[in-house]
Amino acid sequence: MRTLRMTIEYDGAGFSGWQKQPGEVRTVQGEIEGVLARVLREPVVVHGAGRTDAGVHARGQVASFTTSSGICVARLSHALNGLLPQTVRIRGMNDVPGDFHARFSALGREYRYFFAPEPTAFGRYAACFRNSPDLELLNRCSSELVGTHDFRAFCRESRDSPNAVCTVYGASWSRSGEQIVFRISANRFLRTMVRFLVSAILEARRGDMTQALEKGMFPSALVPADPSGLFLWRVYYP
Amino acid sequence: MRTLRMTIEYDGAGFSGWQKQPGEVRTVQGEIEGVLARVLREPVVVHGAGRTDAGVHARGQVASFTTSSGICVARLSHALNGLLPQTVRIRGMNDVPGDFHARFSALGREYRYFFAPEPTAFGRYAACFRNSPDLELLNRCSSELVGTHDFRAFCRESRDSPNAVCTVYGASWSRSGEQIVFRISANRFLRTMVRFLVSAILEARRGDMTQALEKGMFPSALVPADPSGLFLWRVYYP
Repeated sequence: MRTLRMTIEYDGAGFSGWQKQPGEVRTVQGEIEGVLARVLREPVVVHGAGRTDAGVHARGQVASFTTSSGICVARLSHALNGLLPQTVRIRGMNDVPGDFHARFSALGREYRYFFAPEPTAFGRYAACFRNSPDLELLNRCSSELVGTHDFRAFCRESRDSPNAVCTVYGASWSRSGEQIVFRISANRFLRTMVRFLVSAILEARRGDMTQALEKGMFPSALVPADPSGLFLWRVYYP
Repeated sequence: MRTLRMTIEYDGAGFSGWQKQPGEVRTVQGEIEGVLARVLREPVVVHGAGRTDAGVHARGQVASFTTSSGICVARLSHALNGLLPQTVRIRGMNDVPGDFHARFSALGREYRYFFAPEPTAFGRYAACFRNSPDLELLNRCSSELVGTHDFRAFCRESRDSPNAVCTVYGASWSRSGEQIVFRISANRFLRTMVRFLVSAILEARRGDMTQALEKGMFPSALVPADPSGLFLWRVYYP
């Protein structure tokens, strides 16, 4: 058996997230497994590094799978790109040691959230802000997140994941042309965590973030930020 | 009656071009006229500066129309953007003198054609090249186009437009990050002209272009370049 690793780019708009679900739901993992099974003529299970929510995009999702096929990786990724929808692209593929697992071998993930001054005709790859935000203020709020904290205040269902402790390596806001970008990297992310954090930072006083991390509850009800602005940007491995 | 001018951005992928056509065909002009009629409660005819082909995008299409409505432009463009599909956005709107006509008042148009090294998951806004082209060579070929010439060798149906004389102000290739961009500006463009020119330049020796302009025929059969890479970039007015 060989183990293969691939880097995947996708426009999340047409998918109910990365993770395969029962029923007729269109997911990125489901599309890729379906096409792999057709090409390799054997059932394949693909493990992704990050389980992105419905509507969330990826620039550098990483996934791994095992196969008994001897097909060369250039031919396989070419075949996949020919059969996959245009909004899912295999960006690279290579053989890796048998103990590699896209999810468990990852040291961390980086997400980026983009804001634009107004919507464009060319795809929904950014949320829109009304008033140009004060980056210095946002950065002061975000700096509270760096380090090891319990993030139960910022995830969809804490029951799903009894351990809500994550180590955030960096969290910062910057300008990029007309857009504003929030970058956050951490060893792991809870479900919907980045979108809750974006909303929280945008409406937070600095003390609110500290309190939320200490007490496990944000002072006001949070609606997660729109998924269209969010990208799983890259995954780090040793 | 007031005359209004608007700047429009659109993703051409879902449209059979700018120009309204008989039947159930989806065109940008048709969509905008339909929505304007709903908002203004009167029939409206919209004149565009450039009649882009099916699949061709616009960053800065300009259109004009007259109306008896006194609605303020901010409210009108807001209403249009609310009713139009997400892939058509009104970027600006203002009152102009009654003799303004988006097509006939224009001094020139600029088109840009984008090439990327590989397709991305995020919309088809560039054609792909296999081998990185020699920009110096392409620029030498393109420089033959500048000036006033008969471009009948580079249009879809010369019968449509018995006058094929255009004045090209500039035509050049450059690198922009990973992409390659062809920019061309002229007083007017014939149908499918930019896409024929892109194909011709990519396969031409320099003498071919000169001959085509002099004799009205390109030495080999030309297939117009894919529309997905082409944008009507801006329109010039006095």
